[in-house]
Amino acid sequence: MPKTAEAAAQTRPHERLAEALAGEMEAVNALIAERMASEHAPRIPEVSAHLIDAGGKRLRPMLVLAAARLCDYAGPFHLHLAATVEFIHTATLLHDDVVDESAQRRGRPTANLLWDNKSSVLVGDYLFARAFQLMVEPGNLRVLSILSNAAATIAEGEVLQLTAAQNLATDECVYLKIIRGKTAALFSAATEAGAVIAGAPDAVTQALFDYGDALGIAFQIVDDYLDYAGDAGATGKNVGDDFRERKLTLPVIKAVALADAEERAFWKRCIERGKQEEGDLETALSLLARHGTLEATRTEATRWADRAKAALAPLPESDMRSMLTDLADYVVARIR
Amino acid sequence: MPKTAEAAAQTRPHERLAEALAGEMEAVNALIAERMASEHAPRIPEVSAHLIDAGGKRLRPMLVLAAARLCDYAGPFHLHLAATVEFIHTATLLHDDVVDESAQRRGRPTANLLWDNKSSVLVGDYLFARAFQLMVEPGNLRVLSILSNAAATIAEGEVLQLTAAQNLATDECVYLKIIRGKTAALFSAATEAGAVIAGAPDAVTQALFDYGDALGIAFQIVDDYLDYAGDAGATGKNVGDDFRERKLTLPVIKAVALADAEERAFWKRCIERGKQEEGDLETALSLLARHGTLEATRTEATRWADRAKAALAPLPESDMRSMLTDLADYVVARIR
Repeated sequence: MPKTAEAAAQTRPHERLAEALAGEMEAVNALIAERMASEHAPRIPEVSAHLIDAGGKRLRPMLVLAAARLCDYAGPFHLHLAATVEFIHTATLLHDDVVDESAQRRGRPTANLLWDNKSSVLVGDYLFARAFQLMVEPGNLRVLSILSNAAATIAEGEVLQLTAAQNLATDECVYLKIIRGKTAALFSAATEAGAVIAGAPDAVTQALFDYGDALGIAFQIVDDYLDYAGDAGATGKNVGDDFRERKLTLPVIKAVALADAEERAFWKRCIERGKQEEGDLETALSLLARHGTLEATRTEATRWADRAKAALAPLPESDMRSMLTDLADYVVARIR
Repeated sequence: MPKTAEAAAQTRPHERLAEALAGEMEAVNALIAERMASEHAPRIPEVSAHLIDAGGKRLRPMLVLAAARLCDYAGPFHLHLAATVEFIHTATLLHDDVVDESAQRRGRPTANLLWDNKSSVLVGDYLFARAFQLMVEPGNLRVLSILSNAAATIAEGEVLQLTAAQNLATDECVYLKIIRGKTAALFSAATEAGAVIAGAPDAVTQALFDYGDALGIAFQIVDDYLDYAGDAGATGKNVGDDFRERKLTLPVIKAVALADAEERAFWKRCIERGKQEEGDLETALSLLARHGTLEATRTEATRWADRAKAALAPLPESDMRSMLTDLADYVVARIR
């Protein structure tokens, strides 16, 4: 691991960012609490609060606030946009857990397990609609088109994953399309919307979009790495979930590309045909090790974090710029 | 049945409306086909087309076009708004069929049966996002707030139904809230948005909103009536679906209100506890007959259709106004 990344990991940059943005994040959290209420259907705040209060890192709303701050925004509407991206993210998680039939999220039982799939689908729809109400309020049409495009791209990425993830023909190019859709689209929309609401010049807006895009890609690659190499205690997920769910991700895609005939048959059985047996996860891990694909996946994540930092380089130096730069290192530093 | 309703049923007013709006509806259908495509994920148009091409009545997009025509709109953007409401409606149907575990819709197997629940959830999300992209394009903030509010109200109505529909304490007031949310909100948003995009005066916009609201309520009451009294061939649904799904609707709510102790125990067992036996549907139908609640439900539907017509009465006479008036009669005339 590069020295700077190690140092960044020690200071936990997303906490530094959270501290710098604490006042505004409090306002965002109040807005979220206010808007996830429902006069008529008490099931809605129950389900939403279960997920929202579990306390994710609130990375996406922080990216909106950070971008707006970087561009010296003085108005109130970045708060609405920050709440918007958190609602879109939460709606996506509720639906993802139904689609993946997950039992755990953020170290707690999922809503589909505590209530039912119906509640997760419908409360997700409600939060999605609330997100759109919120994003309309600033009255900025360019922001509206950024965020509604992102919502479509996210859904498209999820559907693409559904059809491509169990197909061994899925290559790194398709993988990039999937994660750019399902993850990076909301990161880049967050940073771009923050810049646009602040009326930033096009070059700055583009730089912040590029930063969000690369950061989101790095973030998802790291997630997919940790699914095979992570510490269940730290990640709140079990090792091998993606393997069991037959979801092709970068470490396996790279291993499939280097597989001999016997290894190929193994992947075909486990991922495409879904006939998994006791000991298969161990075999899979040994194949990833044989071809060094976890190492290669880490390199790929670092490359995207570097691209994120490079995107910010042309902007004037500032506290916020340096925090965002550190954040890119930190995302990769989750790999130990 | 009143004479006018009978006459209207014979001329099929929604077909007359469809004829009057044929050119614009063709443009709307082209826009729908274009926007339901996906460059990356072919599963999306497969699933969407299965439902959209099955040919619903396209009542909601026609209401947008009719309202815009009534207000002499000359621009192109009513087409986007018409496609928007059809996408929201289709997304809702995809999610409803997952929630209700339905096997049939519009006389065909449902998407969740042909593909899987995952595809229905995610393609529904995609169509929902596409709806928001479309509604942003006209650049009219008032229209955006009408349609995004409607989306939230729909989801809220669906969640309310989820928690209230199996509870015998649910009365006509809660029922009205549910159907106003899950059905009438999109009808009233359609007519209101058509008026607003045309720049209609407030009184006209309000009249068209009130018309859509009352029409949607009448429409849903008739749907709920037909679930007990309909002809499966004509409705494409089976008699008693709501009973089997333990969904309290107006005919049963009225019967519960009039039930003696033994009848109450019957409803409690079938709806609240879900312990249904052979012959229960027949018993349920005989209880509805004993208390005359199907007749009372029909009366209620007629009352809402009359309100819809009354809402239009202050507007100047025109071909379009008289077609909308006939449409209100037709909605109730589906009850024979």
